[in-house]
Amino acid sequence: MGKTIAINAGSSTLKFKLFKMPQEQVIASGAIERIGFNESPVHIRYGLDHKYRETETVPDHLTAVNIILDELIKLHIIERYDEITGVGHRVVAGGEIFHDSVLITDHVLQQIEDLAEYAPLHNPANAVGIRAFKKVLPNVPAVAVFDTSFHATMPPVNYLYSLPYAYYEQYGARKFGAHGTSHRYVAMRAAKLLGKPLSELRLITLHLGAGSSITAIQNGQSLDTSMGFTPVSGITMATRSGDVDPSLLVYLMKKLHLTDPDEMLKILNTRSGLLGIAGSADMEELEQRCDDDPQAQLAIDIFVNRIVKYVGAYLAEMQGADAIVITAGIGERDARMRQRIADKLSYFGVQLDPHKNRVSGVERDLSTADAKIRFVLIPTDEELMIARDVERVGHPEH
Amino acid sequence: MGKTIAINAGSSTLKFKLFKMPQEQVIASGAIERIGFNESPVHIRYGLDHKYRETETVPDHLTAVNIILDELIKLHIIERYDEITGVGHRVVAGGEIFHDSVLITDHVLQQIEDLAEYAPLHNPANAVGIRAFKKVLPNVPAVAVFDTSFHATMPPVNYLYSLPYAYYEQYGARKFGAHGTSHRYVAMRAAKLLGKPLSELRLITLHLGAGSSITAIQNGQSLDTSMGFTPVSGITMATRSGDVDPSLLVYLMKKLHLTDPDEMLKILNTRSGLLGIAGSADMEELEQRCDDDPQAQLAIDIFVNRIVKYVGAYLAEMQGADAIVITAGIGERDARMRQRIADKLSYFGVQLDPHKNRVSGVERDLSTADAKIRFVLIPTDEELMIARDVERVGHPEH
Repeated sequence: MGKTIAINAGSSTLKFKLFKMPQEQVIASGAIERIGFNESPVHIRYGLDHKYRETETVPDHLTAVNIILDELIKLHIIERYDEITGVGHRVVAGGEIFHDSVLITDHVLQQIEDLAEYAPLHNPANAVGIRAFKKVLPNVPAVAVFDTSFHATMPPVNYLYSLPYAYYEQYGARKFGAHGTSHRYVAMRAAKLLGKPLSELRLITLHLGAGSSITAIQNGQSLDTSMGFTPVSGITMATRSGDVDPSLLVYLMKKLHLTDPDEMLKILNTRSGLLGIAGSADMEELEQRCDDDPQAQLAIDIFVNRIVKYVGAYLAEMQGADAIVITAGIGERDARMRQRIADKLSYFGVQLDPHKNRVSGVERDLSTADAKIRFVLIPTDEELMIARDVERVGHPEH
Repeated sequence: MGKTIAINAGSSTLKFKLFKMPQEQVIASGAIERIGFNESPVHIRYGLDHKYRETETVPDHLTAVNIILDELIKLHIIERYDEITGVGHRVVAGGEIFHDSVLITDHVLQQIEDLAEYAPLHNPANAVGIRAFKKVLPNVPAVAVFDTSFHATMPPVNYLYSLPYAYYEQYGARKFGAHGTSHRYVAMRAAKLLGKPLSELRLITLHLGAGSSITAIQNGQSLDTSMGFTPVSGITMATRSGDVDPSLLVYLMKKLHLTDPDEMLKILNTRSGLLGIAGSADMEELEQRCDDDPQAQLAIDIFVNRIVKYVGAYLAEMQGADAIVITAGIGERDARMRQRIADKLSYFGVQLDPHKNRVSGVERDLSTADAKIRFVLIPTDEELMIARDVERVGHPEH
């Protein structure tokens, strides 16, 4: 029995969630933002409804880790550092090396840093978080949980691009996918809700948040997923383009007088998607505007269109599905969006019950009794999945 | 009554097909290749089984046009130039300007040349062909038939990418599609075969040749298509990659030490697809090799996988389909490939009759009697479609 902390470190952020395990009870959660800037907001939620907010000087991730742990003690959330018996780190890219979560050794840390080529913004930040915790809690098992590892089961027919094969062999040019921890979690919960073993289900999981991806899950394993070599491809996202004809990049670089392809990629990552079409990356705002604003409606229509097409593709690939599982920010809170998606899939036997759909963020089968393919809402919990992996991989004796 | 010639001009080729109209009877067909090189092979087929082959010096397209017309006279296929009463030119890119075939005026020719940005290899060559015929047959109506115009009916939800909207407004960054003449032709023939008005059918047309694309056709109009801003995207092709994560281009450019993005695009166009995966762009060869060669089998599996996923996507988009129509080189000749595709779509109610499938290049419904979605073979005939458009647009009095 102990406390496990799940960590998501970005280049200038450090988010955490502290669990009492194996009870899976959330004790506290919070974040430090703008690390390395002048003033870094620190906030922590704990207990029934306590909130701590402060602005501090946080020059680096090591300081951030120390501040979080010291605040946890000051706020009497923990008494001593050694109450924390496991640390789980979200790592974005696991490449072809990591097919599961793994206990972090020096060698593993080196491998994570070497994989930075696949996720230049994320893996280095993840590694900095790992080093910082290692320094403060040197004797506590630390586990890396990869966004990609759930997709390691994809077969070559789905992970290969139709490029010269040597590019795969020599440079690892393939589809890796992302959001694996979320897809894995909601698939497990959906199986429980549907009362069937996950291994006997075909699921299509829709993770619809700021980043969005869709996964086809067969026999409990990822068969295919909409994100590709990087998380820029697949369906339309808040600021990311999703799929784009590669020729268009080259054409636009000329039109925009860009000489560095990375600048074009930055546009695809940060200025495209809903933001690019309708000027807002916020689906809630678009939902409010769409009745009077055709451009907001168009952005929503494109978002739905891309989702529906991927679902159709995965229905074809798996020759059907038992359930479609919807999750993450938009999926959990936007009932209207769920209705739109389900309506467009009625041909396949998806039937949403509008009354059941009047919920937000709860686990529920939203389908009518006679729906051929269930449509299930499952709030995701990547941090809990990370904490569970710390138990499983970091304390194998349990 | 007269003779119409359909022309497909490439950068170093000029292909033609001569029809007696309105009977739609093929009088002759042929091509000159390697125009501008030292020795240019000229070949013409005519009559029941006559073949003419010669190697000539053909420095430019104007010479090529003169040689073809002179040979037609020498071979007694025509007696005089003025028997040719219409010329139809295939043009690759029509942008947002041309929603239908059009009589070529000086202004139209200028527009075709201005659209070269969208098809840098093709439109200039098409324009050269147009000028050459204009010079030799100045008084004969010439009609441009665009690969893209059939797709002009696509709605914004399908033709827009999720990019900054200004790129569409300012630079025409959108999906245009291609193979429109073929998709249009086979859809019309399929409606006839199925005995229903095209306007009442939902069709998914699979044009599977060296270039391959898939189109969703609703109410006789293109609703969506797999090719994008250019014909490099969509499904796996002989040497073209189809869809690729745009980030991968940038990653590979670094790995391959390429500084010019056009070089990367060239790889995607000429060294990818089946050729990239399995070392051969020829499906017939891959079919022969695949039983003993896992890499050939993988290329075939990927080809089928991408087709099946697009069909699923379009079934979702149209909420079903009446028929899937298969055409072009691979579609018309490769019965084994047709069987593979149909098998993977059985969930949707596609049922191929293996006995009916033992054909090559004939119009036939290949489905079993109780198939929910028909699976129909229709040999394409883009040249005939061009000749028909010459009649319709070039001689409006008919």
